[in-house]
Amino acid sequence: MGNNILLGHGSGGKLSHKLIKELFFTYFDNPILKLQTDSALLTLERSTIAFTTDSYVVDPLFFSGGNIGKLAVCGTINDIAVSGAIPQYISASFIIEEGFSLKELERIVSSMAHEAKKAGVLIVTGDTKVVNKGQCDKLFINTSGIGILDDKYKSISTGETIQAGDKIIINGSIGDHGMSIMAARNFGNFKTEIKTDCASLNHMIKEILDTKCLVKFMRDATRGGIATILCELTESKNIGIEIDESTVAVNENVCGMCELLGFDPFYIANEGKIILIASAKDADRIVDVMRRNEFGRTSAIIGEVVNNHHGKAVLKTGIGGKRIIDMLADEQLPRIC
Amino acid sequence: MGNNILLGHGSGGKLSHKLIKELFFTYFDNPILKLQTDSALLTLERSTIAFTTDSYVVDPLFFSGGNIGKLAVCGTINDIAVSGAIPQYISASFIIEEGFSLKELERIVSSMAHEAKKAGVLIVTGDTKVVNKGQCDKLFINTSGIGILDDKYKSISTGETIQAGDKIIINGSIGDHGMSIMAARNFGNFKTEIKTDCASLNHMIKEILDTKCLVKFMRDATRGGIATILCELTESKNIGIEIDESTVAVNENVCGMCELLGFDPFYIANEGKIILIASAKDADRIVDVMRRNEFGRTSAIIGEVVNNHHGKAVLKTGIGGKRIIDMLADEQLPRIC
Repeated sequence: MGNNILLGHGSGGKLSHKLIKELFFTYFDNPILKLQTDSALLTLERSTIAFTTDSYVVDPLFFSGGNIGKLAVCGTINDIAVSGAIPQYISASFIIEEGFSLKELERIVSSMAHEAKKAGVLIVTGDTKVVNKGQCDKLFINTSGIGILDDKYKSISTGETIQAGDKIIINGSIGDHGMSIMAARNFGNFKTEIKTDCASLNHMIKEILDTKCLVKFMRDATRGGIATILCELTESKNIGIEIDESTVAVNENVCGMCELLGFDPFYIANEGKIILIASAKDADRIVDVMRRNEFGRTSAIIGEVVNNHHGKAVLKTGIGGKRIIDMLADEQLPRIC
Repeated sequence: MGNNILLGHGSGGKLSHKLIKELFFTYFDNPILKLQTDSALLTLERSTIAFTTDSYVVDPLFFSGGNIGKLAVCGTINDIAVSGAIPQYISASFIIEEGFSLKELERIVSSMAHEAKKAGVLIVTGDTKVVNKGQCDKLFINTSGIGILDDKYKSISTGETIQAGDKIIINGSIGDHGMSIMAARNFGNFKTEIKTDCASLNHMIKEILDTKCLVKFMRDATRGGIATILCELTESKNIGIEIDESTVAVNENVCGMCELLGFDPFYIANEGKIILIASAKDADRIVDVMRRNEFGRTSAIIGEVVNNHHGKAVLKTGIGGKRIIDMLADEQLPRIC
């Protein structure tokens, strides 16, 4: 196929067909995709579904523990899974800069295929556009996805059953993804290697739901970190939340990099972390189940829903103080996902 | 909101929320979107669906008869409708260059809302990313979509029931979209204004299917024009197709511009044209129904499936000759959609 992407790879003509057959069909191999219909035809086991979309513009494309392709697949899987749905089908749409390396594209596509297989989802439809050199920065990927949803889990994404006394749970340390990107950019000339936490959490989430414990809310803590989720949630539900800072794990090198750069890890993007809310009686059981999964080894209860300061999330700091967690006004880390 | 897009509009923080509330929620107004869940929760009337995705990178963003937003909504609706499905839900994901005009974004979002409403679909989930100035060219939009599919129409997108004698139908003139973009680029300094044919064809397609005539194949003739569809179809089904050039309408100014620029209108993108295949006995009836729709006034039978030159589409030219329609090797018009 040559070594680089040409404008013709996005023309819909011979070069496009070659790229689709030799690259996408080879890696995303499945009978639905191979029908080459305008739309993928799918027969779902349920008629209630979760449907989501995200575009990925992360820079650089490759970083420790992942790349834009893995991120795009995991991100969409997680958006579906935190809604209580079982992710099943994904679309993949590429906007590629003319001259981009075919070898790098293959590495990215291969990661996507690997991650989709691990998570048990099929990549069933796609699109490729090529723009002239300088009109986009290397590669952007959009993934949209569909999962089937059991009606009894419908309230998980809206959080309508949350009440005072419920516990806030997270499946591990915060800030790893954002700081892995900063490290990959060699920002501040650090010699540290921080690995992204990017992972598909659908299997862990299924294990939680299978316990029959009542999960009242889940959301993945991506762009804006856990602070942004807590702010959105307290504001939209007019509830109070108290987080105990000492229970929130931050890896040592992430903590160090944040301190030096002046970032608060609570606002740093994660790509494999969820905030989960459950009643006090179920919380320990859920944490136990999460800890048995490879992506939840250090799961912990980090706070609770309280019956005061409605509309606000408050952080109890290590030295005994309290401060309000506010929503980020500006962008601290562009192109983090 | 100020006048221009800032990096903070893509941060997930305060500015993002402001943009979502003041722009997207205002225009795409519907209860599913407003739940602000990670995924849109949908209850479908059928469990067989069509699922599709496309990214739009058209340049310029505005052209006669449309803009990137209208194109993105119509394109995804048409991909679903030509599969025999009823388009219902769409996602919209924006990649925006820092500094982009908020007023232009509003015009584009307003077009999307208008087009979705006309077509009877809801925009239920979305995403916004902002990249630094120079890292993308103004604005790219991805739309993915879901339509419900009656099992009896499953063979329309695969074309498995096509046989010799079947008629090839199109709903009007070719090449309008591609040449409208070239005119908007002021390519060759033309003073002509050519209007795109960009339109949502789902209502017309429903009228056709409601006749109970047997539709054997449909596809929208976008990137690569009708030539590319005919090549793909003859090759993948190993059938022969003969097109009568004199029956294929090309608007006068499109024809003139193509001649001057050295383009063949058969390869020029359309955004409101479908190729439909039906049995000879149903063809006239279908054309009648199409002509009654605003987007099918000049519908015509333009050829038929023949029992020779299998794997090839052949054009019978005005002067009595025949030539093979071959697939485009290279890209003649980058960023046409």
